[in-house]
Amino acid sequence: MDNGAKDAALRERAASVIPGGMYGHMAMGARMPANYPQFFARAKGARLWDVDGNEYIDYICSYGPMIAGYGNERIAARAEAQRRSIDIGNGPAANVVELAERLVGTVAHADWAVFSKNGNDATTTCVMAARAHRGRSKVLVARGAYHGSQPWANRRAPGAPGTEHGAFPEYAFNDAASVEGVVREHSGQIAGIMVSAFRHDAGSHQELVDPNFAAAVRRLCDQEDAALILDDVRAGFRLSLDASWSLLGIRPDLSAWGKAIANGEPLAATLGSERFRDAMKSVFVTGSFWYQSAPMAAALETLDVLHEENAPARLEALGQRLRDGIDEVARLHQERIRQSGPPQMPAVMFEDDPNCERGLALCSRLIEHGVYFHPWHNMFLSLAHTEDDIDRTIEAVDGAMGEL
Amino acid sequence: MDNGAKDAALRERAASVIPGGMYGHMAMGARMPANYPQFFARAKGARLWDVDGNEYIDYICSYGPMIAGYGNERIAARAEAQRRSIDIGNGPAANVVELAERLVGTVAHADWAVFSKNGNDATTTCVMAARAHRGRSKVLVARGAYHGSQPWANRRAPGAPGTEHGAFPEYAFNDAASVEGVVREHSGQIAGIMVSAFRHDAGSHQELVDPNFAAAVRRLCDQEDAALILDDVRAGFRLSLDASWSLLGIRPDLSAWGKAIANGEPLAATLGSERFRDAMKSVFVTGSFWYQSAPMAAALETLDVLHEENAPARLEALGQRLRDGIDEVARLHQERIRQSGPPQMPAVMFEDDPNCERGLALCSRLIEHGVYFHPWHNMFLSLAHTEDDIDRTIEAVDGAMGEL
Repeated sequence: MDNGAKDAALRERAASVIPGGMYGHMAMGARMPANYPQFFARAKGARLWDVDGNEYIDYICSYGPMIAGYGNERIAARAEAQRRSIDIGNGPAANVVELAERLVGTVAHADWAVFSKNGNDATTTCVMAARAHRGRSKVLVARGAYHGSQPWANRRAPGAPGTEHGAFPEYAFNDAASVEGVVREHSGQIAGIMVSAFRHDAGSHQELVDPNFAAAVRRLCDQEDAALILDDVRAGFRLSLDASWSLLGIRPDLSAWGKAIANGEPLAATLGSERFRDAMKSVFVTGSFWYQSAPMAAALETLDVLHEENAPARLEALGQRLRDGIDEVARLHQERIRQSGPPQMPAVMFEDDPNCERGLALCSRLIEHGVYFHPWHNMFLSLAHTEDDIDRTIEAVDGAMGEL
Repeated sequence: MDNGAKDAALRERAASVIPGGMYGHMAMGARMPANYPQFFARAKGARLWDVDGNEYIDYICSYGPMIAGYGNERIAARAEAQRRSIDIGNGPAANVVELAERLVGTVAHADWAVFSKNGNDATTTCVMAARAHRGRSKVLVARGAYHGSQPWANRRAPGAPGTEHGAFPEYAFNDAASVEGVVREHSGQIAGIMVSAFRHDAGSHQELVDPNFAAAVRRLCDQEDAALILDDVRAGFRLSLDASWSLLGIRPDLSAWGKAIANGEPLAATLGSERFRDAMKSVFVTGSFWYQSAPMAAALETLDVLHEENAPARLEALGQRLRDGIDEVARLHQERIRQSGPPQMPAVMFEDDPNCERGLALCSRLIEHGVYFHPWHNMFLSLAHTEDDIDRTIEAVDGAMGEL
C-alpha cells in the first residue's frame, strides 16, 4: 500500500480553500478511518483507484449512483452521442419525452414525470406537489430519515429559524401506532406522508419495511386525501425496477428518484399519479441544468441495461453471496457482526458497537486489503461486481478480521 | 420556415406524461409566442436547431449557462477527458482543489469554495452559512428577485405554510431607505442581506445597481455583523471575472455562482470570505452529484477561455453593437422600445407594454427570421456570437418591425 502522499498533499491544499477540507457525505474528515483516501483518480467497472494509485473493489458505488459499472461503455456512449448533438438549449431535447414515457411505463404508480438534478430536488418537488393538491402544508417525515440537505429537510443547520420544521412533524419509521398518532394530531392539515424505501438511516442497522406499517401509511393517506410520498432516491432500481414499495403491494402517489437513475450522470425525477397532475402543474420548480439531455440519454440506456440484466435479482444474488460469505468468516473469527437491509444494499456493522469503533477498525484493515467498505452507512452492489470480486472481498474480510 | 410538425407531435406526447407539457422556465406553454419551438435537436456555437430543423441565432444561451459557445471544443474535450478517467467516485477528484484554488485566485472576496449543482443550491448554501455565523435566521431579499425555486425562495408554491417566508423579509432593490428600514425592524436577528448582481427580474425592465444602494447594503451588513450575499448565478462572469459588485468597489462576504461557470456542464459554487469559514464548516450540505469532476474540468477550461478572450469586455462590445443597431432600427420604425441592463445581458422590451403584447409580437416575427429573442426575460451574449451574427440580427429586427 502506498503511503498516500498525493492524497495528503491534496488534503493540505484543500484545507485552505474548502472549509474543513471537504464538505458533506464525501468528507473523510475525522469520522472515517485515517487511511481512507479522500481523492480519486480513476474508476472502471466496480473498481476505484485513489490518487496514489491504490486499487479498490468498491462497495459504495459513489453512494449509490453507480449501478451498471463506472464508465459503462454503452451508457457513456449514448450520453456522449447526445452531448455531441445537444446537451442544453433553450428547451429540452426530444428525449425528455421519451424518458418520461419510459418511466411511466416502468413504474406502476406513475402517470407523469418531472426531471431535476439532485435527489433533494425530487423530494422537494414531491413536497410542493403534495401541498398544492389540497392547499395544506404539513408533510410527515420519519425521525432520523434523510431526504436531503435543503433547509426543510436538514436538522443540522445552525441558525435555522425555530419555525423551520413545524410543517414536517416526525413519526417513528415502521411504527404504525406512531404515524397514526401524528396523523390524528395534524388531521386536516396533512399534505403528505413521506417514507423511505426501507429504514436506511446512516449510523443505524437497516430495517426492512413492516408490511403492516406500509398498509397503515397507505390507509392514512387515503383517509386524509394526502399523498403517500416514497423517497426512492437511495434504493431506486436496486430492489425493483418498479417503485420499491411495489414489493409490498403498496403504490405511492408521488415518488422521488435520483442516484442510480442515470448510472452517475446527474439526474433526478419526481414521478406522480394522475390525481396529483393538476397540483404539479400549479407549482413552479426549475433549475438551469434540469433539462440537460445527456443525462436523460444515459438514463434511457441505464434502464435498458437494468432490464436486460434483471438488475434487482442479479444484485440480490451478489449481495446474498457477500452476506453469506461474511457471516461464515465472522463465525470463524467469533466476531459478532450484524448484516442488515436488503442484500443489494448491505450494511455490515458490529453488535454492541455504538461508536462504531470496531466497524472503523475493520474498515481500516479492509482498505489495506483493497476493499472499500463503509463503517456506518449502507453500501451498494452493482452489475459490474462479479462473483470473483465477492469471493476476493470475503477473503479480504477474513484477512482483516484476523488482523483485528 | 418549417411548420413545426415534429415539435407539435412531441408536445402532444409530452402533454400526457409531463404535467402541463413542460415545467419551469423552459415551458413554452401559453406565455410564449405560439411559434416558439419547445424542443431542440442540435446546438453549436451561437446557433440552435429545433427538432424540425429550423436554425436560430440564439440570444438566450440556455438562460445563461452557454457563455463560450455550445459544444465549445476545448471545454468539451477537457470535460470528456476527465469523464474517461473518473467523473464520480467515493470522493472527489483532485480537480476540486484546483478549481477551488482557481476561484479563490479569481474572485477577490473569496477565501474558500463549496461546489454544488443548481444555482439554487449555491444561494441556499449562502443562506445556511450566513445563519450559522451568529446563529441568526433572517436573510433579507429584494421583493421580486429570483434566487431559485426551493421552498424558501419560492413564492409561487400553493399550500406552503404561512411561516415559510417569515425569515426572509423583503426590501425594495436599489432603495437604500427601504433596506435601512427593514434592517432597523429586524436588527439583531439578521444573518444576511441577499442582493442580485443587478435588477434582472423577469417581466421588468432591468436596472443597474445604484452605487449608493450598494454602499448602504455593505455598511448595514458591517453594522449588523451580517453577510452581504451576492447572488451572481445569473450574471456571473459576464460583467466581470471577479464578483459583479467588484465593479462598484463593493465586496460581498458570500457569493453564489452557477449557470455559466462551466459553459453548461452542471455546476454551482458558493464562495466565501475567511470570516464565514467556520460557519460554513458547521453546516451540512451535500448532494449525490455535487462532487462530479467532469463539470469541474469544464469550469477550469471555461475560466481559461474567459480570461484569454477577456470575456466581459468582448461581450459588452457585442452587446453594445446589438443595442445600438436595435435603437437605430427602432427609430426608423418609430417603435418606442426600451433596452435595459448591461449590454452583456440585454433586455429588449417596449415602453407602455405592460402585458408584453408588442414584445410577444416582435419575438414571434423574429423567430421566423431565425433569431431567438425573449419577450420578457433578460437575454445573454456569448463568446460564440460574432459581429456578423449581430448585424444579421439587427437586419432581422428591422424586418420584423416592418411586419408588425
